[in-house]
Amino acid sequence: MSIIRPRTLKGFRDYLPVTMTAREQVIETARYVYRLFGFTPIDTPALEYSEILFGKGSDETDRQMYRFEDNGGRDVAMRFDLTVPLARFIAQYVGTLGTPFKRYAVGPVWRGENTQRGRYREFVQFDFDTIGTESLVADIETIVVVHDLFDRLDISPFTIHFNNRELLNGLLERLGLRGEAAAVLRSLDKLAKIGSDGVRDELEEVAGATVAQAHEILALAGLQGSNDEILAALPELVGTSEAAARGIEALGTVLEGVRASGVEESRVRLNVSIARGLAYYTGTVFETFLDDLSDIGSVCSGGRYDDLASLYTKQRLPGIGGSLGVDRLIAAMEELGRIDERAASADIFIALFSAERTVDFLRVAEELRMQGLSVELYPDARKLGAQMKYADRRGHRLAVIIGDTEWERGLAQVKILDTGESVEVPLVDLGNGCRRLLGATRA
Amino acid sequence: MSIIRPRTLKGFRDYLPVTMTAREQVIETARYVYRLFGFTPIDTPALEYSEILFGKGSDETDRQMYRFEDNGGRDVAMRFDLTVPLARFIAQYVGTLGTPFKRYAVGPVWRGENTQRGRYREFVQFDFDTIGTESLVADIETIVVVHDLFDRLDISPFTIHFNNRELLNGLLERLGLRGEAAAVLRSLDKLAKIGSDGVRDELEEVAGATVAQAHEILALAGLQGSNDEILAALPELVGTSEAAARGIEALGTVLEGVRASGVEESRVRLNVSIARGLAYYTGTVFETFLDDLSDIGSVCSGGRYDDLASLYTKQRLPGIGGSLGVDRLIAAMEELGRIDERAASADIFIALFSAERTVDFLRVAEELRMQGLSVELYPDARKLGAQMKYADRRGHRLAVIIGDTEWERGLAQVKILDTGESVEVPLVDLGNGCRRLLGATRA
Repeated sequence: MSIIRPRTLKGFRDYLPVTMTAREQVIETARYVYRLFGFTPIDTPALEYSEILFGKGSDETDRQMYRFEDNGGRDVAMRFDLTVPLARFIAQYVGTLGTPFKRYAVGPVWRGENTQRGRYREFVQFDFDTIGTESLVADIETIVVVHDLFDRLDISPFTIHFNNRELLNGLLERLGLRGEAAAVLRSLDKLAKIGSDGVRDELEEVAGATVAQAHEILALAGLQGSNDEILAALPELVGTSEAAARGIEALGTVLEGVRASGVEESRVRLNVSIARGLAYYTGTVFETFLDDLSDIGSVCSGGRYDDLASLYTKQRLPGIGGSLGVDRLIAAMEELGRIDERAASADIFIALFSAERTVDFLRVAEELRMQGLSVELYPDARKLGAQMKYADRRGHRLAVIIGDTEWERGLAQVKILDTGESVEVPLVDLGNGCRRLLGATRA
Repeated sequence: MSIIRPRTLKGFRDYLPVTMTAREQVIETARYVYRLFGFTPIDTPALEYSEILFGKGSDETDRQMYRFEDNGGRDVAMRFDLTVPLARFIAQYVGTLGTPFKRYAVGPVWRGENTQRGRYREFVQFDFDTIGTESLVADIETIVVVHDLFDRLDISPFTIHFNNRELLNGLLERLGLRGEAAAVLRSLDKLAKIGSDGVRDELEEVAGATVAQAHEILALAGLQGSNDEILAALPELVGTSEAAARGIEALGTVLEGVRASGVEESRVRLNVSIARGLAYYTGTVFETFLDDLSDIGSVCSGGRYDDLASLYTKQRLPGIGGSLGVDRLIAAMEELGRIDERAASADIFIALFSAERTVDFLRVAEELRMQGLSVELYPDARKLGAQMKYADRRGHRLAVIIGDTEWERGLAQVKILDTGESVEVPLVDLGNGCRRLLGATRA
């Protein structure tokens, strides 16, 4: 029979143990932080009715989505984010769950986009949302969650850039361009990519702004200074409309709350150029950049929406959420060399010194595991050299060798693989002995 | 705009917080146990080339799979298990990873099957495999992993039924029916469902067995007794072919090793009727049943395969693996009432007593979180009664109430929600106070 060449689809990737261990640790840390704030887990299917994901009458559905007809003739699609399924979910269960409702959800999403650095067609997101409240306490908490998460991940110094959509609304109102908000947002979102000249051209051509109007919009987006300086400068720039006043007050409240929660000033930056392309954001918006690798883009973004689930229910459900781009973060960790190469392997390797003693080795391995130590027992009684080569390559920390003499003396040789040093440890005390040596090798 | 009715596809389900928390805990426990044994995580895409999943020339591909053409014209399908992607994966990376290679992988798989109790079209499996060794140490470890996992999950007493394919091969050799092994296996796998009369009919009609031959096959499958009694009775039943001898010896070795690893005799049962329908198993096979709900079927199954990846590589890769049916286990836990209703919520609820004090409440919440306590702060300064009703409904354990008087006195009222009892705790010691009260409510 001819061989099928083993390969993944373009834009898809496998996770090997070292990288996958890092991904698990990121997810575990995010789960821990989200839970500390009272977020609870939900899960929704990977497949949904296309109508649910794209809305009705969506004939010109985005070609970038994985949409097909299932065996039962249903028009279905794979989810492209975790927000639309959340909207469907909350509309369906809000009567049972009540509000405010704080959830987290983690899982892969699929988009047929062109691939680029840190972007794949399948990638894992880890979202958290607070639904059913307009209180700015939720906005503050959202920023603090992101702060505590990246603080605990400890990958790189980071900066959370935040803004409020109402500022721009206020300015556009003053300029008589309120109807062009969507086009202006899309242009501003490209500021980092195409520069202020590019944005100016787009504002004039697409949003129909005059030269002077484009100048004012860019002046707002280009505002620089400390958080307090920017706050102070805003009223003059965005005017005195209700929207502008609401936006400025909200920014001040969020900043005050974030400071009260112990977040260092250097970690949050009021950045009026942060737009977020998505139309559904209405208030606070934010993006998070790793200071050591900011050009990989935002690794955690989100914002406030006035009405999440209006496609599926008449009940108004405002809220705010954020999305951790797990796989983009892993790509960043790879570039930064922040992946722990050894975390994937069991701490302790036990050589199977002789086949006759197999049950004794099984017993020793299991006793260590009962004490919470991770142990890999080599399955074949091959030559010790071959087994030790395997252990070195795998990245275990300690190797336990018990030859016939050692069995007789009730001892194990424990080899510290980093240094090659060997220590004799009584078998009855092997767990404690290994723990001591592991503590020493990690310190 | 008309409303789209929020709903999932038939055979798909949402996980609400309480059930999802249970699923997370099951996955966390399995991950912990797999890691203790030196298994390392990998992940593969949900989508693969159909050729990879179904083999070449598979025109009559199982209609139960989700297979479609992607936007680039590729014939793709959603994975229907985690074993076939592992086979592709190991063929692709065995040069880098080396053998033996021990991996685990968790994730959803998709099948368009008819739905029934505990079975959905999307369900999560959590597999572990040891690849690249024929040593029975791996078989022993596999059984011990399953034992330690269910022991730690503590859902119900459980029994791991195990067998070896070689027994049946030996018997069929003696009966001159070796060529009918696949048909015989498929029939035997239905023993629990259609009874011995049904199997006898199938053996005669489909596998072409005589009445006497069918009788001998059923006599083997019906063998009862203690593990040692069955072991002793086997040679006479299955004959003296090489296959039979290998099978009997392997069962003895596995049983000895499992015992040496501290597994109680009542947890493992040599059950000669366990067949596993899948053709690729060649040696040890096992299934795991919850004693309190055995009729939901096996919740963790697997076995040894001679050659996992022969579709994709000429390198022979024997191994053994098991698959935990996470969602079937969750369904069992729901039926058994073993889902912890309160685990989904933060332990501590803080009422937002007054909007003016918001930053103070934020500070208190964050201080508790810094001490590892999970805290939900209500986002709106609504009436205390409404907030407490929310807290009761969510299943928090403690409610922290700090009114204006309490702020002045530097105190918090901590209410134990189970009993309604309130305790005054100094704000400077709130973390320790809450921890003490949580310990008391859990004990």
